[in-house]
Amino acid sequence: MNNIKRVQLQPIPLKQVKISGGFWSKYAKLIKEVTIPYQWEVLNDRVPGVPLSHAIKNFRIAAGEMEGEFAGMVFQDSDVYKWLEAVSYSLAVYPDPELEKIADEVIDLIARAQQSDGYLNTYFIIKEPDKKWTNLRDSHELYCAGHLIEAAVAYYEATGKKKLLDVACRFADHIDSIFGPEPGKKRGYPGHEEIELALVKLYRVTGEEKYLRLSKYFIDERGEKPLYFEIEAKARGDEWDEQWASYFQVHLPVREQTSAEGHAVRAAYLYSGMVDVAVETGDESLIQACKKLWDNITTKRMYITGGIGSSSFGEAFTFDFDLPNDTVYAETCAAIGLVFFAHRMLQIDPDRRYADVMERALYNSVISGMSLDGKKYFYVNPLEVWPEACEKNKVKAHVKYTRQPWFKCACCPPNLARLLASLGKYIYSIRDNELYVHLYVDSEVQTKISENEVKVRQETEYPWDGRIVINILPERELDFTLALRIPGWCKDAKVSVNGEEIDISGIMDKGYAKIKRLWKPGDRIELLLSMTVMRVKANPNVREDEGRVAIQRGPVIYCLEEMDNGPNLNNIVLPKECKFEVKYEKDLLNGVCVIETEAEREDYGSWGEELYKVDVNVSYKPVRIKFIPYFAWANRAPGEMMVWVREK
Amino acid sequence: MNNIKRVQLQPIPLKQVKISGGFWSKYAKLIKEVTIPYQWEVLNDRVPGVPLSHAIKNFRIAAGEMEGEFAGMVFQDSDVYKWLEAVSYSLAVYPDPELEKIADEVIDLIARAQQSDGYLNTYFIIKEPDKKWTNLRDSHELYCAGHLIEAAVAYYEATGKKKLLDVACRFADHIDSIFGPEPGKKRGYPGHEEIELALVKLYRVTGEEKYLRLSKYFIDERGEKPLYFEIEAKARGDEWDEQWASYFQVHLPVREQTSAEGHAVRAAYLYSGMVDVAVETGDESLIQACKKLWDNITTKRMYITGGIGSSSFGEAFTFDFDLPNDTVYAETCAAIGLVFFAHRMLQIDPDRRYADVMERALYNSVISGMSLDGKKYFYVNPLEVWPEACEKNKVKAHVKYTRQPWFKCACCPPNLARLLASLGKYIYSIRDNELYVHLYVDSEVQTKISENEVKVRQETEYPWDGRIVINILPERELDFTLALRIPGWCKDAKVSVNGEEIDISGIMDKGYAKIKRLWKPGDRIELLLSMTVMRVKANPNVREDEGRVAIQRGPVIYCLEEMDNGPNLNNIVLPKECKFEVKYEKDLLNGVCVIETEAEREDYGSWGEELYKVDVNVSYKPVRIKFIPYFAWANRAPGEMMVWVREK
Repeated sequence: MNNIKRVQLQPIPLKQVKISGGFWSKYAKLIKEVTIPYQWEVLNDRVPGVPLSHAIKNFRIAAGEMEGEFAGMVFQDSDVYKWLEAVSYSLAVYPDPELEKIADEVIDLIARAQQSDGYLNTYFIIKEPDKKWTNLRDSHELYCAGHLIEAAVAYYEATGKKKLLDVACRFADHIDSIFGPEPGKKRGYPGHEEIELALVKLYRVTGEEKYLRLSKYFIDERGEKPLYFEIEAKARGDEWDEQWASYFQVHLPVREQTSAEGHAVRAAYLYSGMVDVAVETGDESLIQACKKLWDNITTKRMYITGGIGSSSFGEAFTFDFDLPNDTVYAETCAAIGLVFFAHRMLQIDPDRRYADVMERALYNSVISGMSLDGKKYFYVNPLEVWPEACEKNKVKAHVKYTRQPWFKCACCPPNLARLLASLGKYIYSIRDNELYVHLYVDSEVQTKISENEVKVRQETEYPWDGRIVINILPERELDFTLALRIPGWCKDAKVSVNGEEIDISGIMDKGYAKIKRLWKPGDRIELLLSMTVMRVKANPNVREDEGRVAIQRGPVIYCLEEMDNGPNLNNIVLPKECKFEVKYEKDLLNGVCVIETEAEREDYGSWGEELYKVDVNVSYKPVRIKFIPYFAWANRAPGEMMVWVREK
Repeated sequence: MNNIKRVQLQPIPLKQVKISGGFWSKYAKLIKEVTIPYQWEVLNDRVPGVPLSHAIKNFRIAAGEMEGEFAGMVFQDSDVYKWLEAVSYSLAVYPDPELEKIADEVIDLIARAQQSDGYLNTYFIIKEPDKKWTNLRDSHELYCAGHLIEAAVAYYEATGKKKLLDVACRFADHIDSIFGPEPGKKRGYPGHEEIELALVKLYRVTGEEKYLRLSKYFIDERGEKPLYFEIEAKARGDEWDEQWASYFQVHLPVREQTSAEGHAVRAAYLYSGMVDVAVETGDESLIQACKKLWDNITTKRMYITGGIGSSSFGEAFTFDFDLPNDTVYAETCAAIGLVFFAHRMLQIDPDRRYADVMERALYNSVISGMSLDGKKYFYVNPLEVWPEACEKNKVKAHVKYTRQPWFKCACCPPNLARLLASLGKYIYSIRDNELYVHLYVDSEVQTKISENEVKVRQETEYPWDGRIVINILPERELDFTLALRIPGWCKDAKVSVNGEEIDISGIMDKGYAKIKRLWKPGDRIELLLSMTVMRVKANPNVREDEGRVAIQRGPVIYCLEEMDNGPNLNNIVLPKECKFEVKYEKDLLNGVCVIETEAEREDYGSWGEELYKVDVNVSYKPVRIKFIPYFAWANRAPGEMMVWVREK
């Protein structure tokens, strides 16, 4: 076993974790009861007024069971796969024979669409059968294959059924016969990364080393000269424009990349795959590259919400400290990708800085992507919105101020569904006789430590309340370490065991309080994370946020909405000394803590008609303002929104 | 004579005005000695490293004197016409036989390229001879015709030579035979307005009423249903997308338009043409529309620099109060168009508000378009620049932080040349026995008042100094009114005649001090405009400028540059009470007044590596900052620039 693998934490499988109550159980329920059925209807084009998906129809046509043309994006298949993956996670936690029957039927359909050589992509089967594998840069064939594989592994793990896994293996085998370093094979790799991490999942579940080798090959080859995208472009009689190299993360071999570049979702998926391959092959050089890329993202290129990708052009990273709030991209899928990357980094290096970012993205830029009713979505997650500008200044046309029922390019909705349905995977990890608690979620985990069954139950109203009660229920007395993450944002954390406070200062290890003792059934830990309202400043190099402050409480970033504070939020200034009042409002936005304070509002008297005026006397009038959690914005009447508020 | 025409001021012809010294004489000299020769070289593709213009070659090919293909934009001809117009104005003021010879040769070439029916457009002659007049929306045929006409009128007025005027008339006659309301004619109008104002010039110089009728027809027909652009699109087998209507100002008949919409240059040219037609036809309804459009622009859609057009998408107006400083467009040509519009409004309503805007645009967004050496140009005139963002965040890719030697779409450089070469036209107007002074420019004007020759000489270092001495030199004692504009920005103006101060409060009329008396040769007026440094605030609805202030002195808007103030200009805050020190630096930027003051800079101590931090202690350290005139930015080392500075 390689070094990295030896030190690696193991996430606890989804089936062993129950999210029982509190904040995330609402999401689990919503995904199961609303989002998954809603998205199924959309994939079948049965929701009036919503852009036609045509995704299921494409499979029917490809399977020869229906007449018609392919429709949708070239990667339309992936919507079905991601939906199936979400279904799998949901079934793992909440068995549901009816849903499983639908899934089985979809899987049968997918299997029927697969060609005899294992090839499976409805766009190429229907529309351009002679163009397979001729444009890896744009065609998303390997991307869709990756999502098929992820769905197959998830469905197998949830149900034990192998049919989709067999489909995935046949396709993976086919891909393996086409691509690789061996003579006669194409030295290609995907335009949109995704298959790398998927193949490692397939390797882990099947034990087939060729899948790991293929994944490693895709990663090793990426960015090597001569560039495959140039070769294949020439073969098509097309041109490769070197300017696009960083968009695809092929500007350098991956081990030489030190800054996060290009399309943010692709980048995050690639980095996740790099960690996976590193873990399985013991490749320290990949880990080192991932650490550099991680540092670059999280210290220079990440919004306070965990959003990544500053520019609508290429849905891409731009450069250090360029984090515009209003022309922002911060795609929901990119925040999801960041969660994937963070979770993987955390397993190889149990340092809270990874969990902090994972939590930051989850509570903010990820769930801001979905309406509270589970049926409407943001693709772009802005930090400042003036609705009229989104409508009328096309520079901001990509920024919507109301969530949409679906998209022509619908990558985000099923991505949200699969992440939120699998949230149980992100809470705990285990290594030898250490049980890590990364996230505070009202939940119960059943696992084995040194061959002994252990149950651990968290009870908490987190993130609204910082009190977490953890019940330890080993089958018998057991010596092990419970590692509790003390979030980076928390300035004061208290831990008591069975009512007795313990001093954690001596047991902190990379942000985790490591409580090692002989645990008895019924031992009870109480963790108190102080949840003061925090004024957050951005690094002074973030020019957009100079003179501004963001409000955070626990892991939740707050914002102002026009609904609560009137129009023109940019004339509100927050005095240096202000007292924040936190209130839980159970009927507001499905129940959230709001933050109120006395601020000031610029007052110009009656300004009149002039556009510019000299020697204006600005006075400030006191105004009570109300912050709501950022993720819950745009769930009421449309209006302005602002995260970074001017500071006086 | 119609009502409007009766009250209209008459600008004094260029030949009667000499700009003798001071600020604008440097520009006049630069245009003549550097810019016109430089642009001639560019038009002939003789400047290494500059995008090939091919504009002269296109005429050679069209004339059948050279083999080759058309190259450049579909409106490439207009670059030559605008250059010729600039040459004409320069010749009117500074006779130059060598330059006139070059111009004559170009005119001969243009005449040889003209077809026997009068048609003249090198793109269509060379490339698509069978597609003439089939796509008025995009083809710029009428736009180029307009520029040909303007050049022809200017050259005739400067030299008395009729050759180009004849060419223009033949083409105008041809156009008149094709377009109009009469049966059998196409009911078209230009995609890019320009010919409207040009035809009125042609009418004025030739007395041919059909040119006025044609101009009026283009204006009357614009926006009427059924929309011609839809008709011609159908005829081409193409589609008309109604979303584009406002881009072309055809969303409504022009008299019903109340807000400035679409492509800002097109809009400004259209509105200018509307005033011209209104004046000549006595059409009050057009004037009323122009007034509404003027008010909309100047009270809601104009940058403090006089720049118009907030968005790079469509180079267009967006909506009221949307004036982003960093994603801005504010094309140089649009500011020039605003000068045209302002100048025309001023003649029909001698109110300083028109002259104030004309002056605002001239001293700021117009001349910011050209480097101090006359050879490099801005297309876009931003109010805030972070160079790295222009390079790496494609949302700002249209914003350059160094002026360019030329452009593929090179409308701005020759437009600057023709405006600056004709500046003399904008200084004075006359009506009956009133002589208006709109702009304070060191200059001499020779005109006739009630049949008597009068010479008036201004001596001034304006805009650096507010003292203007005006010498009145009538051939004999003469009773007339001298109307001196007291700029809107000026809080304290003093006027003395022959050393004796006069109280102007009783003689103010729409911002002009009207001094009526029996003027004797040698009478001497001294006007003192107080030139304090002003802190300007934007209307609170301009969200981008909330909490910020711009610095203005006289008509000149100031900015901070990185060169003088270090990087990250957004962490500079200007205390409410600060003392400004004005210094004339004769060796800086060709001689400018700079403004210095004690400001404060946010100081975070050593921030470290974190991207976000809680409870940061921001201190402010005093810093001396230096403002330079906005128009002169980007003439030294590249760096950040900012007009709207944070206020403490």
